[in-house]
Amino acid sequence: MVKSIGVLTSGGDAPGMNAAVRAVARTCLNKGIDVYGVMLGYKGLHEGQFYKFNRHSTRNIINIGGTILKSARFPEFKNPQTRLEAIEQMKSVGMEALVVIGGDGSYHGALELTKLGVNCIGIPGTIDNDIPLTDHTIGFDTALNTIVEALDRLRDTSGSHQRCTILEVMGRTCGDLAVNAGLACGAEIVITSETGFDEEKVIERLRQSKAGDKKHAIVVITEHVTDVNELAKRIEAATGFETRANVLGHLQRGGRPSANDRVLASRMGVRAVELLEQGKGGLAICEQGGVITEVPMLTLFDSKRDVPEELYEDVLKLR
Amino acid sequence: MVKSIGVLTSGGDAPGMNAAVRAVARTCLNKGIDVYGVMLGYKGLHEGQFYKFNRHSTRNIINIGGTILKSARFPEFKNPQTRLEAIEQMKSVGMEALVVIGGDGSYHGALELTKLGVNCIGIPGTIDNDIPLTDHTIGFDTALNTIVEALDRLRDTSGSHQRCTILEVMGRTCGDLAVNAGLACGAEIVITSETGFDEEKVIERLRQSKAGDKKHAIVVITEHVTDVNELAKRIEAATGFETRANVLGHLQRGGRPSANDRVLASRMGVRAVELLEQGKGGLAICEQGGVITEVPMLTLFDSKRDVPEELYEDVLKLR
Amino acid sequence: MVKSIGVLTSGGDAPGMNAAVRAVARTCLNKGIDVYGVMLGYKGLHEGQFYKFNRHSTRNIINIGGTILKSARFPEFKNPQTRLEAIEQMKSVGMEALVVIGGDGSYHGALELTKLGVNCIGIPGTIDNDIPLTDHTIGFDTALNTIVEALDRLRDTSGSHQRCTILEVMGRTCGDLAVNAGLACGAEIVITSETGFDEEKVIERLRQSKAGDKKHAIVVITEHVTDVNELAKRIEAATGFETRANVLGHLQRGGRPSANDRVLASRMGVRAVELLEQGKGGLAICEQGGVITEVPMLTLFDSKRDVPEELYEDVLKLR
Amino acid sequence: MVKSIGVLTSGGDAPGMNAAVRAVARTCLNKGIDVYGVMLGYKGLHEGQFYKFNRHSTRNIINIGGTILKSARFPEFKNPQTRLEAIEQMKSVGMEALVVIGGDGSYHGALELTKLGVNCIGIPGTIDNDIPLTDHTIGFDTALNTIVEALDRLRDTSGSHQRCTILEVMGRTCGDLAVNAGLACGAEIVITSETGFDEEKVIERLRQSKAGDKKHAIVVITEHVTDVNELAKRIEAATGFETRANVLGHLQRGGRPSANDRVLASRMGVRAVELLEQGKGGLAICEQGGVITEVPMLTLFDSKRDVPEELYEDVLKLR
Repeated sequence: MVKSIGVLTSGGDAPGMNAAVRAVARTCLNKGIDVYGVMLGYKGLHEGQFYKFNRHSTRNIINIGGTILKSARFPEFKNPQTRLEAIEQMKSVGMEALVVIGGDGSYHGALELTKLGVNCIGIPGTIDNDIPLTDHTIGFDTALNTIVEALDRLRDTSGSHQRCTILEVMGRTCGDLAVNAGLACGAEIVITSETGFDEEKVIERLRQSKAGDKKHAIVVITEHVTDVNELAKRIEAATGFETRANVLGHLQRGGRPSANDRVLASRMGVRAVELLEQGKGGLAICEQGGVITEVPMLTLFDSKRDVPEELYEDVLKLR
Repeated sequence: MVKSIGVLTSGGDAPGMNAAVRAVARTCLNKGIDVYGVMLGYKGLHEGQFYKFNRHSTRNIINIGGTILKSARFPEFKNPQTRLEAIEQMKSVGMEALVVIGGDGSYHGALELTKLGVNCIGIPGTIDNDIPLTDHTIGFDTALNTIVEALDRLRDTSGSHQRCTILEVMGRTCGDLAVNAGLACGAEIVITSETGFDEEKVIERLRQSKAGDKKHAIVVITEHVTDVNELAKRIEAATGFETRANVLGHLQRGGRPSANDRVLASRMGVRAVELLEQGKGGLAICEQGGVITEVPMLTLFDSKRDVPEELYEDVLKLR
Repeated sequence: MVKSIGVLTSGGDAPGMNAAVRAVARTCLNKGIDVYGVMLGYKGLHEGQFYKFNRHSTRNIINIGGTILKSARFPEFKNPQTRLEAIEQMKSVGMEALVVIGGDGSYHGALELTKLGVNCIGIPGTIDNDIPLTDHTIGFDTALNTIVEALDRLRDTSGSHQRCTILEVMGRTCGDLAVNAGLACGAEIVITSETGFDEEKVIERLRQSKAGDKKHAIVVITEHVTDVNELAKRIEAATGFETRANVLGHLQRGGRPSANDRVLASRMGVRAVELLEQGKGGLAICEQGGVITEVPMLTLFDSKRDVPEELYEDVLKLR
Repeated sequence: MVKSIGVLTSGGDAPGMNAAVRAVARTCLNKGIDVYGVMLGYKGLHEGQFYKFNRHSTRNIINIGGTILKSARFPEFKNPQTRLEAIEQMKSVGMEALVVIGGDGSYHGALELTKLGVNCIGIPGTIDNDIPLTDHTIGFDTALNTIVEALDRLRDTSGSHQRCTILEVMGRTCGDLAVNAGLACGAEIVITSETGFDEEKVIERLRQSKAGDKKHAIVVITEHVTDVNELAKRIEAATGFETRANVLGHLQRGGRPSANDRVLASRMGVRAVELLEQGKGGLAICEQGGVITEVPMLTLFDSKRDVPEELYEDVLKLR
């Protein structure tokens, strides 16, 4: 039986991570398992930045954005020697297993530690929803609502001035934030890495809208597709629509977690501890059709996310 | 091919209903189908309160709570003669089919109309999430976030004054709002029609918490279980916890719809029109594991919702 | 020169209290003055529940509702002996002066301590805005926005169902929350301790509205005027308006403080320390026409708040 | 006695403009004065885009951002001939007077019309708070809260990653948004057109913070001061703080108006009509110390806004 578990957050922070940390801690304490918060992700694991949690340690964090455990880049963890040193740090306090909350990039370290005999369980925490085999990642729902709120605000002013508004959102490799936000806000056009970007078609579509009865239009686009300020100028020149671009940026990562993200994080945190209790490791927690389950990390690395084609089609049907 | 469709909202209003109305309207207009808004539910159907929609009719409603089509009680619609009169009204403007957005009570009228030759499709719109065979109803996610926001506020003052706080929420026959909110807010106890209510156990649990290190506690309870103000007095007397009860009430029904509710409503609205286009009727749209699908209304009437046991257990594991 | 200052929160908690605590703490630390957080108001002062603050103690609290210092009832502080004991506790850690954040009830203890040689400065923290000589108290703006948000939600469902909605809000002796919220939400009627309550006139007015073109109506009423659930029944019987009552309750006390409350709290906290530094005591910080100033507590006790007649008139003009 | 009044919105839209339009309309209708909504500002005035309002015209807009009357640029209105043509349009429907809601740029046209015999009253509507002689403009409070919410989100992620975060906000000529937001969010540094910008001092200050115990820092800066993305790179290079810049952009203009903005707008709208009723024109409504009053537009043009020095000092005292 596992007697002591650590928990860390890794990669970009996401709202709901704290609820997951709390769930791991509470579940452990209620089971009589020692639990440590590991600061600064794998960096803190390597440096032995451990805080032993008691019942008060995770009080009043379920509704707070960010991560109380902080996060940091630590590419050095790819080095096998560094990992062994981290395991020594863990041993020094009796920590036998680890819950890693973060993106799938974070899972590689977790899998390596598991191979070295330290059971690790991954919990998907990232706003981008870019992890295969789970319907939702922790933070996605909050970030989506943040984008929708921004679009609602932009709609007010866009409508009042009869403008075309472009909003650049996160989701470099996964367009879920963009397409869901576009659908939720009646966007004219959604552009992601998954749709590709044909500027001529975009402009032609907006020209048609302008020619028709559309008084204003919203375009949602993911980061790293094109320079949206330049795109705005070209759209304005080509269509006559006064056009403004907005880059929403890092504020998408913060904020009070939504109900869904807290529930998801809580459920996943409970599950992670239960798996470690069963002596399992190298698994990634997933949500599939509302059910919390788990898959081997290796399976996850070999999988690809499905593109939600229907949502993209619905954007077209409803514009 | 259907040439003219009506859409109405029925029963208690729910955030996202307008997004569903918009989706029905837009999908129709984009397909060249005439579409009418029917005011005041079945009452307006019977009275012929129809407004022909154009592209502007549903502008700027996707993010507005309530229903622009209004709702009204109309028990008279159980009368077969009344239904025939409603069909006459529909015929008078050429309306051949109907989308009914509301609770499953509203589906009975829809099924009767279908039997009389007017194809009807039901869309689940109610905050209570009490409709079988669909994972989520339109409005549930928004209401859940409203409750969570209220609990976050109550937690601030409950913690500052070291009180026990009771919040009564909606969900007379379905505890989904209560249990999800309880899990999302770290409630000590969740009481619903599905858990039953054993006052002695509730008090004993709070007595233990008070005796332990708990400085404040949150109890979430659904309406119609007990008088929460009286319960508060008894808890205070029995445990020594200063206790306050709050009844959240009708404000749970309103507010800007969440991203999820708008996406769900939009997808369901599109599907409803597509089914009517295929000449189908007597079906209820559902969401199952993230997929939009449909079931015969009769099947739905014979089904019961599963109680999410795991969530109730997680509340216990995390307190 | 004062070398050590304590800060406590007293009475009902109010959003922005933490921002005031932080401002007191930061100003002290930046001036090289020791600063202690006193837990649980005068109770903690008497018991010596003091925490010495460093720069980290007030980190990340500026945007959190409630009070990290907690609050508690402590009528024993009216006892002169109890006060002398509290002063002994203060002396034991070298605390020479005190900032009291709370309602004007809290100022009495502060004035008594000042008379005993311990300079105290009061900061008005209460959502009710019921303190004379200050335009705004800390927490009022947040609570007002909380009420307005609740009314916006109620408006959605009230309009959809064509109902009369009654909302009971806080402000037992001061109707500022009610009248501002009523004006901000287009209420038909506002009832406070300052307007008096003539049920016949209320019903007559709603009867006229119903007879006219009004489809729904909002009534805002302060607590302790009448039983709103009973009032709802009588209005429904007398006017034919389907009527629902809501009691907003303690959630009005919580939530992220608004920008205004944080700015006000920060400015007042700075000022309080500067006055203590100048060797002053027995003063209450006020905001008058946007300017932060102070008045002797005795003057404040002899003053009455002006009723904002113009706001009540504007409610009538705009309904 | 004036028998018919028009109302228009001009310049950038601001949350609360609709509440002002509603107040103008309602006050007129309750006094038996005809009232017209003028679309698209002075452009619509010149083109005769007038809609006669009834009691339903301004229903459910008090809580909606943007302006239902739209706004448009129309430099042609500086042309005397254009103004005369606009007056002809007004005369054609009997419109005798005008309420202009917008920035002080909009007041010039209003003053010219007044000189030509058409009484105009200005209502200050702009998020920037850059109009002299009024403490607050309509929209300022909402925009400030929008910025504060964005900063709260950024604080979550900035703290989790121990970053320096730069946020560029609106307020080209008036730093009120920046300095209030900075104070409300515990910003390290606030840079506006009123403070000037000394990059070396900014970097030196952040270097000190980094050297001290500060783990993250927030810099608030108004638009048009410098390229914030380039500034972020230089700060990162010079201080070692990982630094990210965000441009908040047009979303600051939108959103549900705050309680304060709705109350302010409502009061100002009532006053504007009352002044026109008294046969007055060429006046601008102001709020001074909580009191609604008015000043001659000419006086306003000759005045300058005071810089709120105390707020800038408080930012320094509290960092």
